Formats: sequence, structure tokens, C-alpha cells
Amino acid sequence: MTNATTVSAEAAASDATILLRADDDVAIATRDLAAGLPLDLPAARVVVVETTVPRAHKVAVRPVAAGAPVHKYGQPIGRATRDIAPGEHVHSHNLAVGVPTHEYEFGTARQSPPTTMAGRTFDGYVRGDGRVGTRNFIGVITSVNCSASSARMIADQFRGLGALDEFENVDGVMALTHGSGCGLVPESEGGQTLLRTLRGYARHPNFGGLLVLGLGCEMLPVTALVEDLGLPEGALVETMTVQDSGGIRATVRTAVETIRTMLPQVDAARRRPVDVSNLVLGLNCGGSDGYSGITANPALGHASDLLVGAGATSVLAETPEVYGAEHLLTRRAVSEAVGRKLLDRIDWWQSYAAAGGGTLDNNPSPGNKAGGLTTILEKSLGAVAKAGSAELAAVYEYAEPLSTPGLGFMDTPGYDPVSVTGLVAGGANVVCFTTGRGSVLGSKPAPTIKLATNTEMYERMHEDMDLNCGRIVDAAATLEEVGEEIFETILAVASGRQSVSEELDLGQDEFQPWQLGTVT
Amino acid sequence: MTNATTVSAEAAASDATILLRADDDVAIATRDLAAGLPLDLPAARVVVVETTVPRAHKVAVRPVAAGAPVHKYGQPIGRATRDIAPGEHVHSHNLAVGVPTHEYEFGTARQSPPTTMAGRTFDGYVRGDGRVGTRNFIGVITSVNCSASSARMIADQFRGLGALDEFENVDGVMALTHGSGCGLVPESEGGQTLLRTLRGYARHPNFGGLLVLGLGCEMLPVTALVEDLGLPEGALVETMTVQDSGGIRATVRTAVETIRTMLPQVDAARRRPVDVSNLVLGLNCGGSDGYSGITANPALGHASDLLVGAGATSVLAETPEVYGAEHLLTRRAVSEAVGRKLLDRIDWWQSYAAAGGGTLDNNPSPGNKAGGLTTILEKSLGAVAKAGSAELAAVYEYAEPLSTPGLGFMDTPGYDPVSVTGLVAGGANVVCFTTGRGSVLGSKPAPTIKLATNTEMYERMHEDMDLNCGRIVDAAATLEEVGEEIFETILAVASGRQSVSEELDLGQDEFQPWQLGTVT
Ligand SMILES: [Ca+2]
Ligand SMILES: [Ca+2]
Ligand SMILES: [Ca+2]
Ligand SMILES: [Ca+2]
Ligand SMILES: [Ca+2]
Repeated sequence: MTNATTVSAEAAASDATILLRADDDVAIATRDLAAGLPLDLPAARVVVVETTVPRAHKVAVRPVAAGAPVHKYGQPIGRATRDIAPGEHVHSHNLAVGVPTHEYEFGTARQSPPTTMAGRTFDGYVRGDGRVGTRNFIGVITSVNCSASSARMIADQFRGLGALDEFENVDGVMALTHGSGCGLVPESEGGQTLLRTLRGYARHPNFGGLLVLGLGCEMLPVTALVEDLGLPEGALVETMTVQDSGGIRATVRTAVETIRTMLPQVDAARRRPVDVSNLVLGLNCGGSDGYSGITANPALGHASDLLVGAGATSVLAETPEVYGAEHLLTRRAVSEAVGRKLLDRIDWWQSYAAAGGGTLDNNPSPGNKAGGLTTILEKSLGAVAKAGSAELAAVYEYAEPLSTPGLGFMDTPGYDPVSVTGLVAGGANVVCFTTGRGSVLGSKPAPTIKLATNTEMYERMHEDMDLNCGRIVDAAATLEEVGEEIFETILAVASGRQSVSEELDLGQDEFQPWQLGTVT
Repeated sequence: MTNATTVSAEAAASDATILLRADDDVAIATRDLAAGLPLDLPAARVVVVETTVPRAHKVAVRPVAAGAPVHKYGQPIGRATRDIAPGEHVHSHNLAVGVPTHEYEFGTARQSPPTTMAGRTFDGYVRGDGRVGTRNFIGVITSVNCSASSARMIADQFRGLGALDEFENVDGVMALTHGSGCGLVPESEGGQTLLRTLRGYARHPNFGGLLVLGLGCEMLPVTALVEDLGLPEGALVETMTVQDSGGIRATVRTAVETIRTMLPQVDAARRRPVDVSNLVLGLNCGGSDGYSGITANPALGHASDLLVGAGATSVLAETPEVYGAEHLLTRRAVSEAVGRKLLDRIDWWQSYAAAGGGTLDNNPSPGNKAGGLTTILEKSLGAVAKAGSAELAAVYEYAEPLSTPGLGFMDTPGYDPVSVTGLVAGGANVVCFTTGRGSVLGSKPAPTIKLATNTEMYERMHEDMDLNCGRIVDAAATLEEVGEEIFETILAVASGRQSVSEELDLGQDEFQPWQLGTVT
């Protein structure tokens, strides 16, 4: 084999690969690489391609001895099944997942992210309890599907040109409707999950006023949504039922009047600069593609690290997507208790997935493999890349309050609307969502920022995307540059700049509490 | 004890009780009855009240020997635990459920309802496949939540004053949105139930045109909703995805154009008289009270019998509500196979309910007992009363096509929006819904007729109720009179008269497919 270091750096291609972490053993090809091509790497290193490497596949940038771990995302994704030389294609022929170990380690790989953004600020709404909103909505929240139409009618009265012109600090009146609230056992896991979700929205700092609307005879009464919620003194909260109000028309009339009386007070709120540590970022992805794990996800991970380093909260989710990499997350856990909580949720998911006729153990499909993914670990690490490298400070159940600063993990399905609903219920005041195929999710009252993984989709669906991370693979920008751009976009949007999903007023239909269990 | 027959008929109270069936052993008190009050019964019989009978409780109208069955709704609700004399209060002190038998009988108690309404007609839309619609909507049906907001935006373009003025035979453009369609195993029970529901709506005769909208990368592709559906030749069906169309704005523009081109053809449909046998009635109840089983439910049962006798289809649902009376339904089954299908569903429900932390075996609660219900059988028979006395011709799984004329039963939860969605997916073109507490359900594209069980609620929520069955307990009308009025209302609404829920444009938010199983 040729020794790569003899090639001059001037002639080497610097845009042919992405090195996700400086000490990774492999880089990712941004296009088909022919043998003989010199690759320009950081620190003036040059490696020559030894064997053809298809686009999005891995190429070794250091020698790896047979049996040694191969690192990508700064993590071992498997072990070399024979000696691998720099410049070689790394895939199923020379890489396999090691013997899985159930000897979990806790806290053995904690890292503190950079504090370069400490002290930065954004303009937020400081609520009476000290929590900070990024928007100022009035919410019409429903206890049961039977009041959903009424809630929509109420919100519709405040839609359209001019409806809220007098109240320029109010972002809108939104209906939070859902399909459940009755035909369930309130004390069951499903009933408690719904209740936690609704209560989470009821106390979200992006609401300046709240109307809780029920039918009247439902199993989850309206009072259950707001009692003992610890809302700040003077919080604007009203409860109503259609049955007590004398039907739909009377309910809508009364509710519209009630909201009109709230509006001046909600409108009196003003944004003011607050420390970036008041941000609670929800991390999510949907419609992933072969670029997700090498562009948008690690770029978002960099932004997440910048936030965490500055004292903010950032929360990964989507348990089925991180399955297979949980032992790496436990090593990042701040304590054994935090790591064990994650493992408990994974255990729970094994039987939950089986009950639905599926399995969590989705090894890379033939399509995934053709796309360059070799092991399940590598696939999951592509999703976990959204969470950067910070230590794991907390694990939350679905819709649980996100109360611990730093990086957290919330147990949610991978299904986009359900996952994001859990994060917002927990208090996320900004959501970043990476997508390859083109999701059009919105999540009001919290803004969603959508990050395209590839330039083709970004251009085709540019009206639905906030930022193009495909520039990383096009070599127009580095991971770090795009990560910093995401960070700045988060601050701008948190301060009031509308994201594209907000321009389209999305999020009412995407409010989808996780429906667990039996409908009776 | 006094012999009741000595009292003169002139002095007897004719409005103090309701006798649900001529040969029942008990009547229901419409008010508190004092001992000594003579009760006027059909066929000039008079019975004197022997012991105080509270309102809505049972009073014996014939002698029942110890150990003999006590009949209400024409069915045994238990056995006398001692001799019961005419005029005695019948409750827990002298009535108990017999030893439950698991020796099911099939078809031993078949009855044919009256054919008095045979040959009656209503004005319907006859579709190319011969099925008859009662409305003429265009539907925007979604494969996944990720296209829900887009579907709403499309439908919204055709809302409001004047939007469809040129097309007076078109009832509207409605969005059918839901929370699922991805994050599931399509082959699982949950996936198949959702697919069956969506396909049922796609082929509903109340749609004159259909746009099927997906995101593009979901697990349930748009084509799965309409392929091999057996739609009539020339049916107006278009499929679209947001990803292929270039985002939300482009999707909405294109979809609105597509629907505009459909409108003239959909508007060209005309109602014409068709035989009443083309009606498919969905039976439902929600927010039941102590009057449900003695006013609205049996009156609706009478209307159902009139429809069935005239060759139409009428379908009971809500498995948890009929539990306890299934052995009486199997006796009414036209075959052992039909009866066994019902028992199989009941078996399935035992474990489904247990998984949700509940049980089907909800004996009358202390509140139920105070309200006059003695046994679980009596409670369930109050719900089954909606189905009249006709033989049971078919049992359907959730959202299965309602293909057999006569009385059927569909396995659904009791939860109102989910149950009614299953019935409409099966092809119900009218729904009758009884309510005591005051449901405000709508179910477009099929009209819902709401039947109040009591006058107090009817007056308080008169804008949301179509008909007051409380007049039965007020003695202003008999069960049969109100049953015939319901029958005539069904025909009028089927012919185009708007029900109150249609005036309020309800049903889009109440479209709630049964979500079974795991969300991944
Ligand atoms: Ca505004
Ligand atoms: Ca997802
Ligand atoms: Ca019209
Ligand atoms: Ca038509
Ligand atoms: Ca019900």
C-alpha cells in the first residue's frame, strides 16, 4: 500500500470527506472516491484513498489493528475484523459490532462542552415563577375530544387578518385538542401520561393566558389539568365546560368574552434580555436520510453543546432511535441513577414494541447498508449525534418537567408529533428538528426550527426549511460553522423571529399526546 | 296485601310509570310513588303501589314467584329472591342476578320487527356502485398526522360564507385528520385497524370526491388508502404528497386547484327518492344518565326496529356497554357463527380492558343502584335497548363494511368519537346518538341526530339537541310515538335536512380512529 503522507497537501481534496470528530478513525465520503485520491485532513494530514469508497460510506483515516475499536462520532461503532490501513473503505468486510456487553458503565465518559457562549442573552418573556417564555400565546386547552370542536371555534374567532391587531405582543390564541380524555382509566399509565402532557402544556411559559375547556361528564375533569400546578400568582387561568355553559354556542360566546378580557393583560407582557441558560431546547428528527447522521444531526449536536456549555437545557428524545447506543449514553451519565433510569426505559420499550408487533432491534436494512451504515450502533449514533458530546444530566419520562440544566434525555416514541409534544409538554421553549426527506412539522406554542440534511431537499422544499445543513456535504461550510449558525438561529427565534413553521401557523394539529393503552 | 284490581281505572295515575314492554314484570316509576297510589296500565289493568318506590326505580306489575325470572326490556334481568306481589318495589332486596350460565344459546329468541314502514323512501345520492349517500361532501383524507395541517388549510379555503355558493349541491370540503399513520407496524392489529378505518371513509357514499394527502415518507402510503377499494367507475379520487409537491404552500395551491376542478362534477349529483332500505343507521350513546335506558334508548330501539322491518341496516356498537347482556344477543343471532363472533370479541375485550388497568365487569355502582339499576344485566340492557328487538344479523370488527341488512353489532369502544368513527367508516349514512348529560358530538360526512334522554338537559342545551325523548318520562308521549318521530327524523335528515350538529359544522375534530397498540 502507498503511504499517504508522501502526497503534497496542495493537491489533496479537502471537500471529499467529512471528519465528524478530530480523533475519529473514519471520515465520510461526500462523493464517490476513486483509489489514489489524496484526502486533505485537519492538522495538515493527508491520506490517499486505497480502495473505491462510495458516497456517504466510511474511509479509514488512521490504521486500525484487527480487534481494535473503530471510532466515528468519537465513539466505537464496532471492531475491525482485520487490520485496516488508512485510505481503506470501512464497511461490513472489515468491521463488525463487537460482542455486545451488558456490563454497563456509568459516568466513565463524561465530557464538559465548551463555555464559549456563556453569558449570551436572548429576549424572552419572564413569567411570575421565573420561567422564561419565547412566545406569548393564549391557549384553549381541552380535557377531552368532546370539547375539541368548541375549542377550535373559540380559537378561530381570533384568527385572520386584524383579529389581534390591537394586541401586538400576543402571538395568537391556539386550541390544544386531542382524541382522548374519556374511555380510559384515569389512574392507568395511559391516563397518567395524558394528564402529565396536558398539565405540561397548561404550565408552559409560552402561554400568557389559559382557558381550560371540557364537556363536563368526561373522566379527566377540567380541574385535574390545572390544580396544584404551581402556576405563578396572578396567572390567567379559567375553566369551563360545555354542559355547564348550556351548549356549544353559549360556550363559544362566553369563552370569547373571557379571552377578550384576558387580552390586554397578556398583551402587557414585554420581552427583555435574559441569559441563554433560560433556553430549553428540544432535539428531534424525522424523515431521516443517509445525510442525517453526517450533516444536520452532528451540526445540531455542536449547537447543543454550545447551549449546554452556556448553562442551558437541551433534551434528546426518541427512544427507538437511540436504541443500541444506550450503553454509550450511560457512560456519559452524571450518575448511576441517571444511567439506570435510561436502561429502565429501554427495558420497558422491549415489551412495548413487542406488543405492537415490532422490535427495537432494527439492524441496518439493506438500504441502510447500501447507504454506508454498517452496524446498529452506527445507525443509532447518527441519531444521538443531535445531542453532541455533553454529559447526560437527566433522564425524563414522557412529558415530565425538564427541570435539570444540561443535556437530558426524554423517553418518547420516534414518531415526530408525539415526540415533540412530549418535549414541549416538558417545557421546551425552542425545538430543533432535522429532516432529510422533508418534514413539515410545527409545534406552537414553541417554535420549531427545521434543519435540512441535504441541499436537494432544501431547495425543493425551501418554504418549509429554516436552514440548510447540506452545505456541510457540499463543502460550503464546516460542521462547526453550521453548528454555530444553528446556535445563533436558536437565539434569534427564541427572541421572536418567526421560524418557517410559524409563518405557516403550524402546531395545532401536531399536538399529539402519546396515547398509551386501552380505549374503553 | 291489597288486591290492585279492585281500584277503579278512572282514579289511577297513567303518567306515574313507564312499561317498556307489554309483557314486562316491572314498570319504571317516573316520580316517587307513595304506597296506595293506583297505577293505570295497558289493557285496563290497574295495580296499587304496595311500598314506596323512588323515581326511576322498578315497581312490579305482576306477581313473580320466588326463583322466577323478572323481565324488563322483554328480557330477564335476574330472578326473584322471594315472592314478589304486584305493586311492590323491585330492587336488591327481592331481585338478584341468577347464577351466570356459560351455556350460550344461539338463535333461540329471534324476532322479526314490524314491516309497517316497508316501501318508505328518502332522497339520497345514488353513487356509481349503487350505494346511497345522504350527503355530498368532498373529503381531504390524510394518511398521516404529518399532512394534517396541510389538509386543514386546503379545506379552510372552501369554508365560510360564499366559498361554495356556485355549488349548492356540495355540502362542503372536509379534512379528515388524525394522529397516527407512522411510528407503527403497518401489518399489526393497530396498523390494520387504522387502514381499515381510512379506507372505509375513502369509500363512504357521502363523498362525491376525494383527495388523499400524505407527507411522503410515512409508513402508510397514500396509495394504500385507495387501491383495490372497488370505487365506482369515474369516482373522483386524487392522491398527493407534500414532499412530492414541494412543500406546504405548493401542496395547498395544487390541492385547491384540484378540488376546484372536481367541484362542478360533484355538484352535478342530484338527490332522488330511494327505498328506505338504503339507510345504514349507526346507534350510539354517550353521557348516559338514569333516563337513558327508559326513554331515549328504547325509543331509538323502536325506530331501529321500524328501519330493520323495512329492510334497512341498523348497527349497535360499544362493546363495553353491552357486556353482561351478550348471552341475550346470541339468542337473537341469526346463526351460531354470528353469535360466536360476538363472543370472540367479548373474549378479546377481557384482556384488552385488563391491559388498560380496567375491567369490563362493571357492576352497577352505588350511584347506579340509587338510580334504580339492580343488576349488570339490567344496566347493559339499557344500552342494548337502542337496538330494539330485531334478530342479530351480523357482527362486525371495528370499521368493517356494514354489508348485511338488518340489525348488526360492531365491536367498538364505548368512547363516543372512536365508536362513531368506526360506524361511519363501516358505511353508516346516518347516526342516532342518545345522551343524558349532553353530548355535542357531530360526525360529518354522516349526519348525527342527537336524542336527549331528559327534558331538563334538552331545555338547557336545546341548541345542541335534535329531539327530546324526556317527553316519555314527562308522560307527554309514549315510547312508540317518540320512536316513530325518531324514524321520521332519520328520513328527513337523510333527505338533506340539517341536524343541529351539522348547523354547527361538527365532525372534523371528532374523526378519531381507534388507536390500538404501540407508537414507535
Ligand atoms: Ca401578534
Ligand atoms: Ca422522529
Ligand atoms: Ca351547500
Ligand atoms: Ca357527486
Ligand atoms: Ca359512548
